[in-house]
Amino acid sequence: MPFHHFIHESPGWTTVSSELMYRNPYLEVRCPTLTSPTRPAPFTWTVCHRKGAVVVAPRTADGAFILVRQERVPIRTSIWEFPAGQIDDEDGPDVIEMTGLRELREESGYELAPGGKLVSLGFFFPSASFTDEHSHLLLAGPVVPSPQGHEHDEHEAITECRAFSAAEFRTMIASGEIRDANTLAAFARLVALGLM
Amino acid sequence: MPFHHFIHESPGWTTVSSELMYRNPYLEVRCPTLTSPTRPAPFTWTVCHRKGAVVVAPRTADGAFILVRQERVPIRTSIWEFPAGQIDDEDGPDVIEMTGLRELREESGYELAPGGKLVSLGFFFPSASFTDEHSHLLLAGPVVPSPQGHEHDEHEAITECRAFSAAEFRTMIASGEIRDANTLAAFARLVALGLM
Repeated sequence: MPFHHFIHESPGWTTVSSELMYRNPYLEVRCPTLTSPTRPAPFTWTVCHRKGAVVVAPRTADGAFILVRQERVPIRTSIWEFPAGQIDDEDGPDVIEMTGLRELREESGYELAPGGKLVSLGFFFPSASFTDEHSHLLLAGPVVPSPQGHEHDEHEAITECRAFSAAEFRTMIASGEIRDANTLAAFARLVALGLM
Repeated sequence: MPFHHFIHESPGWTTVSSELMYRNPYLEVRCPTLTSPTRPAPFTWTVCHRKGAVVVAPRTADGAFILVRQERVPIRTSIWEFPAGQIDDEDGPDVIEMTGLRELREESGYELAPGGKLVSLGFFFPSASFTDEHSHLLLAGPVVPSPQGHEHDEHEAITECRAFSAAEFRTMIASGEIRDANTLAAFARLVALGLM
């Protein structure tokens, strides 16, 4: 299975063994036995492997952000969030940018305007104590509606898509209406980098 | 096993069945078959259940934030982040506040100063497409070093703990040095709420 394990054995870390506990096309659960810089005696941990992902913060020429409202099965509800999707083959060229542009168009029906560009906001780990899942963050702007519209795939259930002013977006974060790590992490980087 | 499934069946969502695929003391993988508001025909998903968590943003009287540097096994490295820990029994009284204060003292060796308080920053979902894991966010301040120091448990490997000014903290977010969802989400809420 093409999981790209986001593990670069750092100095002082050694994987003694890595028992496969469960696997399906969407995740892999392993219980590695390993040593770390502060733990020279082998110990065991539980790790979920997932594909990496790309999150896109789409911004229009007048500074509004595009959000999609999507059904999320684990929490049995729909939430407003930035378009995002998994990376099919992390070793491909320009794969982060290509995945971001694909998800932008498929999920929101927007695309980069002529002269628009993608700006990297780095990456983050959604839950670093149990999964190596990592999500790259991109600012896309300016964006405009695509002539092709959106193309939701069969696994997605996006019920709404609309533009929110920067002030509205900030209010949704303050109130807790925005409550997914992808969108919160992108906002954190945008603010810290002085990009909004 | 005492997983508190963070699922409140919303209108239009129905769980037809929920097959258990793997379980150990740290997580549970299920493949529920269900219907949703936009998907009336039953479909199957993969969901990881984990305990809920509490993240504490500790701030001193002079506005510095306390961060801990912790070994994270899935990514085989140490990262700077806010103290955090899992909730043992989500139905207990004051469990969010008690868990936050416990992790604050155990991981960082700090505690609320006399007159200090906890302020809720809401909660977030680290990876809403594959897990119902949810993390509550608290601002704690002002904090002071505890006379008892820290008490790292056997599963933790915290190698450093120190105070960073608000400007240093912001720079670490901008540079990507801070790259865990817990700390980024807390920063996002602090900024959006006008608390920093």
